Amino acid sequence: MTELYLEDLHVGERFGSDTIEVTEESIIAFARDFDPQPFHLEKAAAENSIFKGLSASGWHTAAMTMRLFVTGEFRAAGGSIGLSVDELRWPQPVRPADVLRLETEILDVRASRSKPDRGIIRIRNLTTNQRGEVVQTFTAFGMVRRRPVGGER
Amino acid sequence: MTELYLEDLHVGERFGSDTIEVTEESIIAFARDFDPQPFHLEKAAAENSIFKGLSASGWHTAAMTMRLFVTGEFRAAGGSIGLSVDELRWPQPVRPADVLRLETEILDVRASRSKPDRGIIRIRNLTTNQRGEVVQTFTAFGMVRRRPVGGER
Repeated sequence: MTELYLEDLHVGERFGSDTIEVTEESIIAFARDFDPQPFHLEKAAAENSIFKGLSASGWHTAAMTMRLFVTGEFRAAGGSIGLSVDELRWPQPVRPADVLRLETEILDVRASRSKPDRGIIRIRNLTTNQRGEVVQTFTAFGMVRRRPVGGER
Repeated sequence: MTELYLEDLHVGERFGSDTIEVTEESIIAFARDFDPQPFHLEKAAAENSIFKGLSASGWHTAAMTMRLFVTGEFRAAGGSIGLSVDELRWPQPVRPADVLRLETEILDVRASRSKPDRGIIRIRNLTTNQRGEVVQTFTAFGMVRRRPVGGER
């Protein structure tokens, strides 16, 4: 897959991803390591919680989204280096057997004023399930290399 | 540890946490699952990257911060339910052997207008390493229960 430089990116472009199937085991394993609350660990406790059933930690959804991003269509030269994240929301719970997919939209592209070899992009990452429901959304600033003068290295 | 209701929380209060020691193994294991980029997976690639050495995925730092939050001093009745996150930043890389700690500050407390049994708080979560350097910061809105009328249940 071609590596993308700042010059290759345009506002409004969208990039797709592979999919991840969420499992009960992966929800519980992540929760045990990073978000050990009863409604992410045990089915019975989850049924009686505000979530009405087992659901993934929001940070698990964020981590799975990063996997979809890194393995997806958007391949920045030098790697995906996030500078900051805003407006991170989880409008729907992620459940066992959900199949997640990511769409990345370019919101802004600009060259760095101080560093001639790079630029800054702003993106929106939209994670959806198999019914097309949005389970997570955020915007982020990221660093992208400019194409080296004299062609690709 | 006492469970906290909305009525127990006041702007400016701060809550501490336990610590997590980051290991090379945990950085690589998380990256393999969720952020498989060379600079999070291999020491040699990391040395030659912008990070100048192995560093944790920002989403790994976010996940470890959630663990510190859930196991820390701030114990909301009914659990910690995040609604949204903003201004997520990683000002310093997280390295193997770093010891992370969390400080949570209450920024705002208000009752829900539509739901009399709950309220909304805004917090700042500041994750620091063993040298007191800030490695992650974000603000979040969370849901907290109001104390049931007639005393604690």
